[in-house]
Amino acid sequence: MNTLAILGPGLLGGSLALAVRAHAPQCRISIWARREAAVEEVLAAGICDLASTDLAQVVEGAEVIVFCVPIGVMPELAQRLAPLVGPTALVTDVGSVKAPVVEALAPLFSRFVGSHPMAGSEQAGLSAARADLFEGTVSLVTPHPGIAPGVAEEAAALWRLVGCEVRTLSPVEHDASIGLVSHLPHLIAAALVDFVCAGTPGAVEFCGNGLRDTTRIASGHPEMWAEIVATNHAVLGSQLEAFIARLQQVARDISGGDDAKLKEFLTNAKIQRDRHIKQRD
Amino acid sequence: MNTLAILGPGLLGGSLALAVRAHAPQCRISIWARREAAVEEVLAAGICDLASTDLAQVVEGAEVIVFCVPIGVMPELAQRLAPLVGPTALVTDVGSVKAPVVEALAPLFSRFVGSHPMAGSEQAGLSAARADLFEGTVSLVTPHPGIAPGVAEEAAALWRLVGCEVRTLSPVEHDASIGLVSHLPHLIAAALVDFVCAGTPGAVEFCGNGLRDTTRIASGHPEMWAEIVATNHAVLGSQLEAFIARLQQVARDISGGDDAKLKEFLTNAKIQRDRHIKQRD
Repeated sequence: MNTLAILGPGLLGGSLALAVRAHAPQCRISIWARREAAVEEVLAAGICDLASTDLAQVVEGAEVIVFCVPIGVMPELAQRLAPLVGPTALVTDVGSVKAPVVEALAPLFSRFVGSHPMAGSEQAGLSAARADLFEGTVSLVTPHPGIAPGVAEEAAALWRLVGCEVRTLSPVEHDASIGLVSHLPHLIAAALVDFVCAGTPGAVEFCGNGLRDTTRIASGHPEMWAEIVATNHAVLGSQLEAFIARLQQVARDISGGDDAKLKEFLTNAKIQRDRHIKQRD
Repeated sequence: MNTLAILGPGLLGGSLALAVRAHAPQCRISIWARREAAVEEVLAAGICDLASTDLAQVVEGAEVIVFCVPIGVMPELAQRLAPLVGPTALVTDVGSVKAPVVEALAPLFSRFVGSHPMAGSEQAGLSAARADLFEGTVSLVTPHPGIAPGVAEEAAALWRLVGCEVRTLSPVEHDASIGLVSHLPHLIAAALVDFVCAGTPGAVEFCGNGLRDTTRIASGHPEMWAEIVATNHAVLGSQLEAFIARLQQVARDISGGDDAKLKEFLTNAKIQRDRHIKQRD
């Protein structure tokens, strides 16, 4: 890769520029930003060869183009980008939801594949960008039906270059899996904050580390999360319904005084968590 | 306080012995354990002046007696203890649920008041005991109607001695507040583990720090938590029903495509968490 265009100089776009500069110093990097002030911030940070609000100038001759803007603005930006991109450029993105993004973007480009590098931080923006943000994280690449051979592999190579382990799954599988392990927990954490703070007056003052950790993700960027949830709403609506049904069963076991079932439920949860999730503690 | 009897040499009982020894070295400490092997472990640890399975011997002449056994065995142990305790001894406990414990224990003693030192660890047992376990934590003291003046103050003095900040509320208020900020989040975290692990096969492999933190408490001791939930089941059953109703509202907003309401919900959750909970991060 000799030329890379990054659209959007936020945490992920800025970190991608820094990481590519570190791992492939010969690569020419250009960055597009919507606002002139953001362009100046990028230039002051010295993380690329060119920064501009002029999309045509930024993507001219780029071998690889990566959408690092919020998923809500991707379709419109893609419409503007499409006439400027030649048939050999690889186009990908970093959005947290894939099926709707792929559906909107794939028809516009000869060589598009969706990506979701699962790196991030509670901090946002260029000031939080780091060259090692992707190091040791998983990046999901989501080839869709009809994609040309080699396109997904080329996207995978980009993520491996910056330190990711790459996993491949379809856009629909992606949204179901990531909805379950990331978007749904976010909704539940937010609902729990809302419920506890609206409940018994003063109770929240007695909270300890348990509630703190259970709700930590609810401190994340609300606009970004609202966009993610809205984009993945079809999946999340039914996952939330199914989770509610599971909670109703728990409520019945508690109200019915079924202590054996309650103990089995909590024991099984501990075993499953210790087996599948705890290694990240 | 010149004589203290601790019933149960687990994490809390062991830590209480170590803390009292550190802060009131003149105090004679005796510890009761159900099993002979536990008595030997206590003696080997050298944390008290007397350890025995003989309840009468342990509590003889004790000014203060503290139940540090699981809440499920408190009522039966209290029945055995009652005839052995004089009218001047202060009796308290460390249980995480208060109304049912107070209801069972208060009638048996002249000077009983419930306590709930909110100290703990994911580790359990005497081997995890620490002299500073209570340092800087909050201990809740829960005077009930009809309690003699001075009893709650005496229990408060014990917890202050070992480094706690003491807050007072009624047993019923305690169970509502702690149900909301501690027991309910535990149930939800466990249900989330259960739901995610039973969902889309392989999805859990893609989980990140969000799900890890949201479910951390589900790795807690399942027997202890089952006992807590069963003891506080009246409160938790209705809190869980109300939380389910809140989630149903969220599900309706998502399925109905009400993006403004979704954004308001997530923004409000972030504001509330940052205001009331985040300082513990």
